[in-house]
Amino acid sequence: MNEKMKALGNSPSKIREIFEYSRGRKAIIGEENVFDFSLGNPSIPAPETVNSSIKKLIESENSVFLHGYTSAQGDMGVRQAIADSITKRFSVTAGANDIYMTCGAAASLTITLKAICNPGDEVIVLAPFFPEYSVFIENAGAVKTVVSTSAPDFKLDFDALSEAISKKTAAVIVNFPNNPTGAVLDNTEAAKLAEVLNKKSAEFSHPIYLISDEPYRELSYESPAPFLPKYYKNTIVDYSFSKSLSLPGERIGYIFVPDFVECGRDIYAAVCGAGRSMGYVCAPSLMQYAIKNCVFDTSDIAAYNTNRTMLYNALTDIGYTVTKPGGAFYLFLKSPSGDGNEFCERAKKHEILMVPSDSFGINGYARLAYCVKRETIEKSIPAFKALMEEYR
Amino acid sequence: MNEKMKALGNSPSKIREIFEYSRGRKAIIGEENVFDFSLGNPSIPAPETVNSSIKKLIESENSVFLHGYTSAQGDMGVRQAIADSITKRFSVTAGANDIYMTCGAAASLTITLKAICNPGDEVIVLAPFFPEYSVFIENAGAVKTVVSTSAPDFKLDFDALSEAISKKTAAVIVNFPNNPTGAVLDNTEAAKLAEVLNKKSAEFSHPIYLISDEPYRELSYESPAPFLPKYYKNTIVDYSFSKSLSLPGERIGYIFVPDFVECGRDIYAAVCGAGRSMGYVCAPSLMQYAIKNCVFDTSDIAAYNTNRTMLYNALTDIGYTVTKPGGAFYLFLKSPSGDGNEFCERAKKHEILMVPSDSFGINGYARLAYCVKRETIEKSIPAFKALMEEYR
Repeated sequence: MNEKMKALGNSPSKIREIFEYSRGRKAIIGEENVFDFSLGNPSIPAPETVNSSIKKLIESENSVFLHGYTSAQGDMGVRQAIADSITKRFSVTAGANDIYMTCGAAASLTITLKAICNPGDEVIVLAPFFPEYSVFIENAGAVKTVVSTSAPDFKLDFDALSEAISKKTAAVIVNFPNNPTGAVLDNTEAAKLAEVLNKKSAEFSHPIYLISDEPYRELSYESPAPFLPKYYKNTIVDYSFSKSLSLPGERIGYIFVPDFVECGRDIYAAVCGAGRSMGYVCAPSLMQYAIKNCVFDTSDIAAYNTNRTMLYNALTDIGYTVTKPGGAFYLFLKSPSGDGNEFCERAKKHEILMVPSDSFGINGYARLAYCVKRETIEKSIPAFKALMEEYR
Repeated sequence: MNEKMKALGNSPSKIREIFEYSRGRKAIIGEENVFDFSLGNPSIPAPETVNSSIKKLIESENSVFLHGYTSAQGDMGVRQAIADSITKRFSVTAGANDIYMTCGAAASLTITLKAICNPGDEVIVLAPFFPEYSVFIENAGAVKTVVSTSAPDFKLDFDALSEAISKKTAAVIVNFPNNPTGAVLDNTEAAKLAEVLNKKSAEFSHPIYLISDEPYRELSYESPAPFLPKYYKNTIVDYSFSKSLSLPGERIGYIFVPDFVECGRDIYAAVCGAGRSMGYVCAPSLMQYAIKNCVFDTSDIAAYNTNRTMLYNALTDIGYTVTKPGGAFYLFLKSPSGDGNEFCERAKKHEILMVPSDSFGINGYARLAYCVKRETIEKSIPAFKALMEEYR
C-alpha cells in the first residue's frame, strides 16, 4: 500500500473537517443556528438554461450519442462554442483545438501541472493559496515554492516573485479573483506580472508558464478581471464552470492553451497525455453538451455581491479588520488576537464556522465563504459582535 | 514541458487511430459501407430508467443540492444503494463505506493502482490486455509484468502466473469478461486463482491484491461471472456503469474495497488519497443520483448476445479460426496469415475495420467489437468472405 496516499486520505482538508463538524452541530442545534461560512459551495442555483438544456437533451437526443464517449479533448462542437466565447468576450483568438475539456478545476490543474512539469521542477504559488495546490504539485513530481503577497490587501509582491523565480521554475500559479482573500488583479498589475515573467524567462532562457486558475473569473464585482493571455503570452488558463454556473458537483471545466503559447501545440499534446495517464477519458458527456448552450450565462452573481457588501459593512462596523474583497465569494478576516487558529476555535463557541488561514499557508486570519443564505449573514451579526467582545 | 506526457498525447491509442480513419472513410463512401468493428462503444441505448431518473431529478430536486459537491467518496445514499445491490446480488456483505464513487473504470484503475503501489512495485497483467493498463501502471510508478494466457481460448495459465509473482508483486489485474478476447472465468478457475494468490501471499509474507477490472461484469452470456471477492479475500473491484447502462461518456463507476480485505480500511483511505492527489474531487453528482435508481438495471444485453452468435457462426462458416467468446462484446479472430497487423491492413481494403492484437500485447489476432448495428454484421459477411479468399 502507498503510505503517502493513505496519509492523504486520512487527513481530509481542514475545510472538509469543519464541514463535518458543521453537519454534526446542525443536527444538534438546528441548521438555522449554525453560521457556517466554511465551504465554498455555491448557494445560488444554476441558471435555468442549464437545467432546461439537460432536459431538452434527454428528451430529444439519441441516447447512444448523448451518453457516449466524446473525443478525449471533448466534443468538437462544445470546444468550438467555448473557443468562440473566449474570442468574443476577451478579444483573444481561440480555436476548438486550443481547448481541452476537463472534470473541473482540480482536474484542469493536475493535468496542466503534469503536462508542464518534470520531476524536480519548481512551481511558484502565492500565499495565501488554495491548499490542494500542494497536493497537485506533488502529484506532478514538482516542488512548491511559496511567495507571500502583501497584507492587508494581498496584492502581488513583484519583487518577492521576481526573486523567487529560479532556473528550475517551470510555472507560476495565480488565482484571481482569489481564494481565500477575494483579491483581484487590475490591468496594471497584470502588465507588471507579464513584465516580470518575460524578464525572467529571458534570463533563464526558457519560458516560465503562467497557470491562471480561474474558477472565480466571473465573480469580479468592481471591474472585469483581466484576461491574462492578453498580457502574458505563455499563459495557460484552467477554468471551471463550478462557480459561474453553480455546478461544482458536476465536474466540468476546461484548459485553454492559446495558440500563441511557446511550444503551445506540444503543451496541448502533453495535456492530452497527462489526462490520459491519470484516467481522464473524457469530461462527462451530457454535461459537456449542456454547458455548450450556456457559455455566456452565469448564476445570479449579484446575490453574492449583496452578501459581500452586507458582511463587509457589518464586520467593519463591529471593529474587525478586513480588506473589502474585489471578487470570488470569500472574505479574509484578520484575527483580533493575531492568531487565526485561536480565532476560529473561539468563534465555534458562537456557532460561527470559518477556516483558519494556516490551511492557506499563512497565519493570523480566517476565511469566510459568503456564498450563503442572506439570513445566515443577518443572523450571524450578533454572534460576531459577541465574539469581538471577548477580545476587548 | 514533460516529454513523456507529450509523447503519450501525440501517440493516441491504435483504437482511436482506427476510429479516426473510420470517420474519414464513412464521410467518403457512406456510413453503411464501412464495417467498423474497432470501437467498444455500446450501440444499445441506456435503459429508459436512466433518462427518466435524470429528468425526474432535474424537475424535482433542488438545483444547489443536485449539482453541488458530494462527499469525495460519493453521496452516502448512492453508495448505500450500490453496496446493497452487491450484498443482494453476490451474497458478499458490502457497506456504503466500502464504496468509492469514480469517474468511470479508467479512474477506478488509476486510483486503485496509485493507492496500492509504491514506486518500483510490480503489477501483473494477463496478455492480451487492455492497452491503457500500461499507462496507468506507469502513472502509479509501478512496473508492469506480463503473463500470457493460453490460446486458443485465452484461459488463465496458473503455472505461468505463479511463476511470475515475485516478492515485489503488489497486485494482479484481471479482467473477466475480457477485453479483447471475450474470455470469462468459471468458478473452478476463480477458486484456483485464489489458491495461487494465497500461496504466493504466504510465501512472500504480504498480501498480493487482486484488482478485478469489471466493466463487462453483466455481459456474460453462458453463466454469471464469478464475483471474485467471494473467492479471494484480497480482491478490490473496479467497476464501471459504462457498458451495463450504456453510459461510457458519463464517466461513472466505483471502487469496492471489501471490509474483509487485509488492511482494507487503510487501502480505502489510500484510495481517497489517490483520488484527491489526481484531482478527482467527486464523481459527477447528477449522474451519481441517476444511477442510484438503476443499480439493478442493464441495457438490452440480449442484443449483444444475438450479435455474438450471428458473427461467430458466420465467421466460422467462412473458415476463420475463433473461439466463441463467453462475455463482453469482443471476438478475437485468428489471422489466417498468422500476422494480426497484416490481417487488419488487408481487411481495410474490404472496408472492415478491426484492431490488431499487438495493441493488446500479443501478435496474430484481430479484435472485433460486435457492439454494432445488426445490419453492420449482416452486410459485412460478404466482405469477410472476400477477405478470406485472399488467403486461399
